[in-house]
Amino acid sequence: MNQAEVAAQYQAFKELGLKLDMSRGKPAPEQLDLSAGLLAELGDFKAQDGTDTRNYGGAVGLPEARALFGALLDVPAAQVVVDSNASLSLMHDVIAFALLHGTAGQPSWREQGAISFLCPVPGYDRHFAICEALGIKMINVPMTDAGPDMDLVESLVAGDAGIKGMWCVPKYSNPGGVVYSDEVVRRLAAMQTAAPDFRLMWDDAYHFHHLEARAVEIANVLDACAEAGNPDRAIIFASTSKVTHAGAGMAALAASPANIAWWQRHASVRSIGPDKVNQLRHVRFLRDKAGVEALMERHRLLLKPKFDAVHEQFGHLLGNVEGVSWTRPQGGYFIDLLTPPGKAKRTVALAKEAGITLTPAGASFPYGKDPLDRHIRIAPSFPSQQDITSAAKGIALALLLAAAE
Amino acid sequence: MNQAEVAAQYQAFKELGLKLDMSRGKPAPEQLDLSAGLLAELGDFKAQDGTDTRNYGGAVGLPEARALFGALLDVPAAQVVVDSNASLSLMHDVIAFALLHGTAGQPSWREQGAISFLCPVPGYDRHFAICEALGIKMINVPMTDAGPDMDLVESLVAGDAGIKGMWCVPKYSNPGGVVYSDEVVRRLAAMQTAAPDFRLMWDDAYHFHHLEARAVEIANVLDACAEAGNPDRAIIFASTSKVTHAGAGMAALAASPANIAWWQRHASVRSIGPDKVNQLRHVRFLRDKAGVEALMERHRLLLKPKFDAVHEQFGHLLGNVEGVSWTRPQGGYFIDLLTPPGKAKRTVALAKEAGITLTPAGASFPYGKDPLDRHIRIAPSFPSQQDITSAAKGIALALLLAAAE
Repeated sequence: MNQAEVAAQYQAFKELGLKLDMSRGKPAPEQLDLSAGLLAELGDFKAQDGTDTRNYGGAVGLPEARALFGALLDVPAAQVVVDSNASLSLMHDVIAFALLHGTAGQPSWREQGAISFLCPVPGYDRHFAICEALGIKMINVPMTDAGPDMDLVESLVAGDAGIKGMWCVPKYSNPGGVVYSDEVVRRLAAMQTAAPDFRLMWDDAYHFHHLEARAVEIANVLDACAEAGNPDRAIIFASTSKVTHAGAGMAALAASPANIAWWQRHASVRSIGPDKVNQLRHVRFLRDKAGVEALMERHRLLLKPKFDAVHEQFGHLLGNVEGVSWTRPQGGYFIDLLTPPGKAKRTVALAKEAGITLTPAGASFPYGKDPLDRHIRIAPSFPSQQDITSAAKGIALALLLAAAE
Repeated sequence: MNQAEVAAQYQAFKELGLKLDMSRGKPAPEQLDLSAGLLAELGDFKAQDGTDTRNYGGAVGLPEARALFGALLDVPAAQVVVDSNASLSLMHDVIAFALLHGTAGQPSWREQGAISFLCPVPGYDRHFAICEALGIKMINVPMTDAGPDMDLVESLVAGDAGIKGMWCVPKYSNPGGVVYSDEVVRRLAAMQTAAPDFRLMWDDAYHFHHLEARAVEIANVLDACAEAGNPDRAIIFASTSKVTHAGAGMAALAASPANIAWWQRHASVRSIGPDKVNQLRHVRFLRDKAGVEALMERHRLLLKPKFDAVHEQFGHLLGNVEGVSWTRPQGGYFIDLLTPPGKAKRTVALAKEAGITLTPAGASFPYGKDPLDRHIRIAPSFPSQQDITSAAKGIALALLLAAAE
């Protein structure tokens, strides 16, 4: 298409008056419906050990909920805490506790002067928001197809004791869909860090969120850390947010026994215990690892056609455009669309004018600053199958128009 | 009874081999049963404004949940946040946010050197645990029949800018059952504080938890603060923990518009939103203020006979014992039993030997230190009506034996 054709098609699209939100990785209503049985399954309130889940107590979560996450994450149940409806809260609190109380027998992070986190980019905006709010400087690390650039990571953490942590979405990363190779996991676990209280914030948000029939497996980070002699380095976070109900699921944290004890010491001051009724409801509905896998297969069958529709439209309209590419993730919730340099913000603005709300350009980078203004995070899950083709077409037209301007 | 008779009766009691836990203010199973309808009521997942409660979002809580707490606490719904299953978490996070970020436009509390909180005593051990964990020095303030000793409070806060807050359980206080007079509320709202970022942590845990048919009303602290020109001084905390299910209810925070904005700014980094399905479930079950009041009346009818049984046993066995007294609360969950000086710890130990677990003596004081070793917190709610008379008798016998030793 020449510029006039693109402008005409964009204008025609705009006049459809669509109103679509693709800004967040929200499950669609039909995905939420898959867990309708969540509420029907609860006959009584007794956990396996006789606990009355309605009452106070049980700070680390119900035994059966811990066992379920243990099986899902391949971690002993004793090394799992199930708490809250949002793993983001657990991540925030791990950092808040480290800031206020310290970890690994070291002084509190607040007492250690300026501290930093490594942030593989593009990455998850809510991770970056936590660091920004808590005054932790963020250092960009480029992603490769196999995870973060490990040569750079190793040299940075070896030389600066102020680098206290690193954000990792090791499988189907947000937004690039990157899967960390076993070699990357091993190097992260084994690398020399100047800080004795360095932590891998291992956000395993998409552990069982496959888009292909063949599930991707990655190395177990707790095992790798233990083998490397750094058992307390990684803290894993996961949730059922994209398994059952996004706002009303259960979240988990898995770590070494020392880290679990550390967490428990500080978290027990904050709460008498999580919502155990919801945990019981979840365990009775999900049953076990096989139950979760069967449910995730039903999610996959709803999500895959939406991703395919985006790929099809993008392929059709953007396939031969100079400087444009996008990721084809094997799991997770996002596609990372790359525009020609300097065109991401403008594309998002034009898409907005045409009724399509996207994540703000730059959101995948610390401080919202994409140095080349190239990345747009596409979240295909929420719109209906009917709308997703239109939406992808509209985004592509917006990009073409932005590129032509 | 003489010492030998006491010893013989205690011995006989011990041989009954009871196993009763009166350590915490836990609702009894029959109280939890009152909310069985909580799970049956949810037909769909749509809030009044069309929100799909299953999905992400809604950081400040469902509008109808905010409206319900607003009606219960006599605060505009816009000044209410509903979040989490535990008001303790909200209290912890208010203090953590102030430590990390500061409040009222002042530097963070962490940057302001040594800081302190005033703690009316006896008080709630979990409040004190938060201060202790977060390194906030606690200053005891004696309670009177109408609330904390205000002459002392006023002179302390006027002279020390390091005093940043004060714990208040203004109605049916834990454990003394004290109700703050309107005069005390007014003085707390109006007093001159050296710290511009001083906060009243207003734990209104027992706002609608009456033990007498006639409900006690107290002055509205937010109104009093606004009238005194200190609109941002008080933050109110409340929950349905002792209304529906203790571990699976909903918690609320109410405050000035400026404080709500401050909370939201920091809390929104921590979570994408609370469990809105549980909020919907609660609002549909509880309906409105009248619905809560009707449910609380049923709680009252279950709780009152337990308190009466304790009063009866204590009156019978301890009524004429030198140095012994106990409170007769008009609401809340506790009785504060005063032993002769130096006898509380020993009484708790003897009760334990006889199968009755009580809150550790001293728990009602900062750092667990009751200077005179006199206070024992009695929580009559959890044992059955059948057991409560035995338990009260056992405690009385333990006290008598301790006193006689």
